[in-house]
Amino acid sequence: VRENFHESLDTITDELVAMAQQVAVMLHEASQALLTADRERAEAVIAADEEVDTLHQELELRTTELIALQQPVAVDLRLIVASMRISATLERMGDLAQHVAKAARLRHPDSAVPAPQVEQFRAMAALADDMVAKMVRVLATRDVHLAIEVDHEDDQMDQLHREVLEGLLRSESPVSVNEAVDATLLNRYYERLGDHAVSVCRRVIYLVIGDREQ
Amino acid sequence: VRENFHESLDTITDELVAMAQQVAVMLHEASQALLTADRERAEAVIAADEEVDTLHQELELRTTELIALQQPVAVDLRLIVASMRISATLERMGDLAQHVAKAARLRHPDSAVPAPQVEQFRAMAALADDMVAKMVRVLATRDVHLAIEVDHEDDQMDQLHREVLEGLLRSESPVSVNEAVDATLLNRYYERLGDHAVSVCRRVIYLVIGDREQ
Repeated sequence: VRENFHESLDTITDELVAMAQQVAVMLHEASQALLTADRERAEAVIAADEEVDTLHQELELRTTELIALQQPVAVDLRLIVASMRISATLERMGDLAQHVAKAARLRHPDSAVPAPQVEQFRAMAALADDMVAKMVRVLATRDVHLAIEVDHEDDQMDQLHREVLEGLLRSESPVSVNEAVDATLLNRYYERLGDHAVSVCRRVIYLVIGDREQ
Repeated sequence: VRENFHESLDTITDELVAMAQQVAVMLHEASQALLTADRERAEAVIAADEEVDTLHQELELRTTELIALQQPVAVDLRLIVASMRISATLERMGDLAQHVAKAARLRHPDSAVPAPQVEQFRAMAALADDMVAKMVRVLATRDVHLAIEVDHEDDQMDQLHREVLEGLLRSESPVSVNEAVDATLLNRYYERLGDHAVSVCRRVIYLVIGDREQ
């Protein structure tokens, strides 16, 4: 039974990694759809979110079942509880990628990014891709150093977030109210995506450090 | 041991109710700080969020301990898992109330709500108060009908959310980019608060319906 149990734990980790990879692809595609005003690419991301939601629901059921059937304690239980949390966060990241894609779709054939902000959003999108790619590797390898890198990258994300906001409010590059609304929401989506990537990495750090303390 | 266990479950429910009540007060105070541009009231909300975060962390530790020590199954386990989720959602609602208060503080002594939008935000704040008050009662009483009411009220919240957005984009009541940024974020905070209140209520419905199926 214990052997099956540890196989089940490995399966949960594999599924989290697969889910995180799917979120990484969605986010990349959503950013490209946004930056190139590509409606079809946006539609594909919007459709893909359902799969992430389903993966999350399945994982929630499975982890609860696993606790009931195997009654894990200590490290194993902490891993399962952390997995439930991480799954919920990944699901939310999928939602945010979908929000980015929906913003792109809404303004098509125009771009949802105001012209003066394009470079800043390109930088935010690239940083988000990088953070999420590292998050996937952290989930797969539990590399604490990489997890800490994601934490530091989030400082850059917060800085970009402030710069977009300041750019909007600066009068020399005037944007319309419509553009301001879009840019404000998109700016927030990327900032939240960064926060969530950090939250996933911190949970992994906590598991690794906790394990050492056992 | 089982008797202690059920006492522990009751304690968890009591703590969730207390946490939800605190969120309800924070949200009400944040909305009032926003609508009256009251800096002191905003500061109090910003400071109060730490307590909600602490309650959430304590509850997360306690529920994990309870699973490890008591190895609950079926209904009891589902209740504990749902409590963990609800606690995380309440913590997030506290963050959003804090965001509302921070927006109020940032613009003080001006109002963060553009003059043409004041009535709409007043309506959103009142609706949010009502939804969250009902959510508290749903947590305390598991009243499914009340939970469904919250679900319906969220349709009104979504409608108000759309109206604020349309109001911003309508040219007859021009707002500045600065005002548009504030109103866009505040609009989103209230919409998310509504979503979270619904999510808490749905988890309670799921527990009650699930119980009936046992």
